[in-house]
Amino acid sequence: MKIIQPQREYTHSYYLTAARCNAQSELSVAKLAQQVIETATTHANNLGVGYERLIRDGYAWVLSRLTFEMARYPHMHEHYTLTTWIEGFNRHFSERNFVVASESGETLGHVRSVWVAIDIASRRPANLDGITNLADSISSRKCPITPQSKLHPVSSPSTTCRYIFDASDIDFNRHVNTVRYIELMTNSMPLQTYDSHYISRFEIAFSHEAHYGEEAAIKAAHTTDSTDPITVHTEISDSGKTFCIAKFLLKTR
Amino acid sequence: MKIIQPQREYTHSYYLTAARCNAQSELSVAKLAQQVIETATTHANNLGVGYERLIRDGYAWVLSRLTFEMARYPHMHEHYTLTTWIEGFNRHFSERNFVVASESGETLGHVRSVWVAIDIASRRPANLDGITNLADSISSRKCPITPQSKLHPVSSPSTTCRYIFDASDIDFNRHVNTVRYIELMTNSMPLQTYDSHYISRFEIAFSHEAHYGEEAAIKAAHTTDSTDPITVHTEISDSGKTFCIAKFLLKTR
Repeated sequence: MKIIQPQREYTHSYYLTAARCNAQSELSVAKLAQQVIETATTHANNLGVGYERLIRDGYAWVLSRLTFEMARYPHMHEHYTLTTWIEGFNRHFSERNFVVASESGETLGHVRSVWVAIDIASRRPANLDGITNLADSISSRKCPITPQSKLHPVSSPSTTCRYIFDASDIDFNRHVNTVRYIELMTNSMPLQTYDSHYISRFEIAFSHEAHYGEEAAIKAAHTTDSTDPITVHTEISDSGKTFCIAKFLLKTR
Repeated sequence: MKIIQPQREYTHSYYLTAARCNAQSELSVAKLAQQVIETATTHANNLGVGYERLIRDGYAWVLSRLTFEMARYPHMHEHYTLTTWIEGFNRHFSERNFVVASESGETLGHVRSVWVAIDIASRRPANLDGITNLADSISSRKCPITPQSKLHPVSSPSTTCRYIFDASDIDFNRHVNTVRYIELMTNSMPLQTYDSHYISRFEIAFSHEAHYGEEAAIKAAHTTDSTDPITVHTEISDSGKTFCIAKFLLKTR
C-alpha cells in the first residue's frame, strides 16, 4: 500500500508584467492579497480541505485576518514565488502563513492569514472536527512575523470619504472584493507618500461583508509625516456596521 | 548562416482563479483588457519592437483603440489562451489582433487593438520607418470582427458620475490604468444587468491621459432594457478634455 503524504507546502510562481504594476512600478499590497488568496485556495484544494470538501458539510472558508510584513515588493518584470503552509487549526479556524521570495531565493516578506469556517446557511461558525485532513497538513515551518495586533476603530479620523460599492468591486461571492477594500484603504494616503515610502507592515481584519450598492465611510488617521514609520489607522464602515479595520506602517524607502 | 524567423504569433496561457472573477464568476472585460495589453507587450518584446527598442529612439507605444467581440468570457477555474499577431502597420501606428480560446480550442472571442508610437519628449507621433523588424512580423491571419466604428461623445447622458482618480488607479506610466477606465465605464450599468446580459462587443478609444487627483465626469446613455442587445454609450471627460469614449453592446445571456 502506498501512503501519500500531504503536500505540506505549496509554491505558486508569479511574474509581474508592466500591465499589473502600481504607480511605483511594483506589486501593490492589494494585488499581493489577491495572490495570497489564490495561493491559499489552490493549496487547500490540493490538500482536500478546500471549497469542494467544505461545501459537502454546508461550510465555506471566510478570510478573517491578513498581516503582511514586507522588506520590499516584487518589481516590474520580476519573477517571484509565494509559498504557503498551515501553522495550526482548531474546530473553527485555521492559520496559514506565506513567504514571498525572489527568483534567487531572497525573502521579500511574510504573510499571516486567519481563515474561519462558517456554516453557509446560518452564517455561524462551522465545526471542522470532521475534516481530518487538516491535522495531517500542519507544517512545523515557523513564520517570523508577529501575529496581528488587536485593531481598533478610527476614533478621530483626519480624512473621511463616502463611497458606494459598484459592480466592479464585487467578487463571485457577491461581496466586495478583498483587493478593493485594501485599495480604498491605501488610497487614504496620497500618491506622493508611496513614492517616498513603502508599506512595511499591513494588518487588516474583516468583520462584515459589504454588498453592491451599499454606501460606506472610509475613515483614516495617521501620524505626522516626520515620524518613521508613519502609522495609518483606517476603517471602512457604515452606520454602526464595520466592514474592515486596518493599520499599516509606511517606512521611508 | 542560420536565419531566425520572427515568431509571427504569440500565445499566452491563463487560468481564471476564483480570486480574479467578477460577480458573474467570469473574467471581466476590464481584466481581459489587462491580459490583452500584457500579451501584446510580451510579443512586441520578443519581436524586438517593444519598449526597449522604441526607447532607443525616444519613442513609446501608446494604446489608442481596443475592440472586443466575445461569444462568452472565460469562467471560474477555466484554462484559456490569448494568441496575438500583427495585422499591419505604417510609420505611425500598428494594428494587433487577438483570439481568445478555451483549452479545447473553442473560440471565445476576438480583440482588435491599435497602438500609436509617440515621441516621449514632444508627445507627437513617432516615425517608425527605422524599426525594420515590424515589416517582417506581419501575419496573414485574418481577424473576423469589424474594426472599430467612429465613437462619438455622449450628447444626452442619462447618468453622470463625478470621480477623482486615486492612487490605486495609476499605473507605472503615472497615468490612469486602462483597466480602471473600463471598470468605471462598465459600472454605468447596474450589477443586475450583468447577471442577465453579457458584453458581446466593447469598443474604446483613448484620447488624453488622466493623472492622479484629476476629476472627471463619467457620462452614459443606453437604449431601453427591452432592446436586445442594449447599446451603451459612455465617456470619461473633464471640462473640454476627453480621456476616453466607449460603446458597448449587452446581449441577453
